[in-house]
Amino acid sequence: MSLFLKVVPASDAIAIVRHLARTVDAEYIPLTEAVGRVLSKNIKADIDIPGYDRSVVDGFAVRAADTIGANDAIPAMLRSKGRVEMGGNIQRTSIDPGQCFYVPTGGVLPKGANAVVMLENAENVGDEILIKKPVAHRENVLLYNEDFSKGELVICRGKRLTSQDIGVLAAVGCIQVPVFLKPIIGVLSTGNELVSATEVPGSGQIRDSNSNMVGSFVQERGCHPKYFGIVKDNQESLYAILKKAVAECDAVLISGGSSKDDRDMVASLIGDLGEVLIHGIAIAPGKPTIIGCSDQKPIIGLPGHPASAFIVLFVIVRHLIDGMTGDASPQQEKVRARINQNVPSQKGREDYVRVFVEGEKATPLFGKSGLLNTLVRSNGVIQIPAESEGLEVGDLVEVWLW
Amino acid sequence: MSLFLKVVPASDAIAIVRHLARTVDAEYIPLTEAVGRVLSKNIKADIDIPGYDRSVVDGFAVRAADTIGANDAIPAMLRSKGRVEMGGNIQRTSIDPGQCFYVPTGGVLPKGANAVVMLENAENVGDEILIKKPVAHRENVLLYNEDFSKGELVICRGKRLTSQDIGVLAAVGCIQVPVFLKPIIGVLSTGNELVSATEVPGSGQIRDSNSNMVGSFVQERGCHPKYFGIVKDNQESLYAILKKAVAECDAVLISGGSSKDDRDMVASLIGDLGEVLIHGIAIAPGKPTIIGCSDQKPIIGLPGHPASAFIVLFVIVRHLIDGMTGDASPQQEKVRARINQNVPSQKGREDYVRVFVEGEKATPLFGKSGLLNTLVRSNGVIQIPAESEGLEVGDLVEVWLW
Repeated sequence: MSLFLKVVPASDAIAIVRHLARTVDAEYIPLTEAVGRVLSKNIKADIDIPGYDRSVVDGFAVRAADTIGANDAIPAMLRSKGRVEMGGNIQRTSIDPGQCFYVPTGGVLPKGANAVVMLENAENVGDEILIKKPVAHRENVLLYNEDFSKGELVICRGKRLTSQDIGVLAAVGCIQVPVFLKPIIGVLSTGNELVSATEVPGSGQIRDSNSNMVGSFVQERGCHPKYFGIVKDNQESLYAILKKAVAECDAVLISGGSSKDDRDMVASLIGDLGEVLIHGIAIAPGKPTIIGCSDQKPIIGLPGHPASAFIVLFVIVRHLIDGMTGDASPQQEKVRARINQNVPSQKGREDYVRVFVEGEKATPLFGKSGLLNTLVRSNGVIQIPAESEGLEVGDLVEVWLW
Repeated sequence: MSLFLKVVPASDAIAIVRHLARTVDAEYIPLTEAVGRVLSKNIKADIDIPGYDRSVVDGFAVRAADTIGANDAIPAMLRSKGRVEMGGNIQRTSIDPGQCFYVPTGGVLPKGANAVVMLENAENVGDEILIKKPVAHRENVLLYNEDFSKGELVICRGKRLTSQDIGVLAAVGCIQVPVFLKPIIGVLSTGNELVSATEVPGSGQIRDSNSNMVGSFVQERGCHPKYFGIVKDNQESLYAILKKAVAECDAVLISGGSSKDDRDMVASLIGDLGEVLIHGIAIAPGKPTIIGCSDQKPIIGLPGHPASAFIVLFVIVRHLIDGMTGDASPQQEKVRARINQNVPSQKGREDYVRVFVEGEKATPLFGKSGLLNTLVRSNGVIQIPAESEGLEVGDLVEVWLW
């Protein structure tokens, strides 16, 4: 297996991972646990909402026609029929012309009424109510099924549920929510120089930061990471663990090795287990990325340098995770800003430059891809397209926030 | 207790909840569980990172001076001293002028070397290596403690941890992470018209959607919701449950009642238990909001209308939650867009208009605050300041995404 079979554009890599991504099974979970999960079925309203014409203010339910021309000087005078009580199986009241009913917010509109005059625009004078402001037909009223009608689609399959969605699901009685299972993503690192975060590195060693970063990345996006630790650069042990990870997980992310020999070994082992689809992507950082699969399960070989690995997670693997979690319209916030330094770029590859954006200003953070500190000092990344030779001070850029 | 003691600007309400918010205790949790949690202590590097000068590419470690002027036609010829192996307690090698060492990515730079020539710019000819491109001092090298030096602050207290942060914590050996405990937020709804989401509403009834929405809102932002259900508008039972909720939780959010009588009752009970600090905020929707406390624990009375309740969560309660979770720099994404319809607004109050933003275009979603559907059809909100009389088509707006 050679160093780079063929370096492909990022768009090809994204198309391939999208193709490899399939959702796992679905399950039903209680509504109180469903926020942040992805809906696996369309949800329809089981009832009309509201189930009755209801007032949205405290005031007097009236026939709008009875209030025409009413004002402070010449109020409309209506006869009070009483008070609508809240909730329960209350007999629906009614009014005739010239009459009104006090109705609290949320109360059932009496038959014959078609609008509600707000309390502050009315005055009690014994049994008579003086209306000092006219109301239009339907004013301050929520009509029967105005919010949702029975059978109407309320939330689509593939929606990652927000708290507003949860409120709507409660309203339509969806208390056991169908959601996609969280995919299990195997995470391992290779490299003889790596020691676990629990150890103090000796001479020539560094701690493995990628396992934790990669696992947390997929966890943040709705997956269960499963950690397989650090594997030394040994063909047999790496093969055995990779095979185990593929068997136990829905996808596997191997980070490193960072040297050509390690990369070739990882690619060759993926080839042995299944198929290598991409070996090398025309992005910087992140070029030495491997995309393959075994048993229809995606296996991604990430670069060993933390910043490179993170860019590949953010630019490519994100799409795999979105597909596997079933998230149909993932939010990826972008803001516009102006770059405050020149940024050179090589034609023919997409460059991803970490930036710190503050207000309208984006400051590029240059730094070798082996550095961690640029990852935590930046709050986003800009993409410089393959055909561009770079940016000049003051150029408008779109920043993907992370 | 009167209807509105005094309606205050949103900024006052925010200042008060900020003042009421205090973080709960801290705990240590494993690094693999720390993503999304808020750091309770500053974290410093326990070692120098990297702990040695290391190559960031595969290539030949050289003295930069030996490569001056090298090119394809007249390469510099260096004597290969061998290969740097990865990891372990390897005796550090060294080179003299005119010599070089093969070093894989991440390998230790031999003594005497100060740069690395990339593999593709060199050629093996027996024991001699032809260097075809000069390198500058430090080129392709990550220097000793260039990333972090021992004792340096790497992540500040109050940071909500991202996956990049988790990678850095691994690198500095922080495997038990000090984080703030998740505050426990009591959630209850009042209203005689409410039935649980598990029931089918009868005549004059609606399902309680606020409990689930409010609980999910605080859960999304790093709190544990504790549900106390629906309390009928009965002074004694509401007092008893509110007292229990205050005792068992770090803060309490009561949603509804939506009518004046209910609101007055909630305010009066908060007064009995502790103190009402604010009763009425100059925002629309969301005016009938109550802010109080008991035993130094915040109690917020949210409006009963779902859209009003959500706006108050998003505009006011968010600040309480940020403070209680210890989140020092919460991200609140804003995008700029142009409004595509006129939006009237009343002077003297802040209006919050739900919008659907797509590209550069923001479409306002008008709708009564009793509606749920505008909450799920919108993807953000715009604020119209108290002094404005509204927006005209084409006006530039900032949208807070939700």
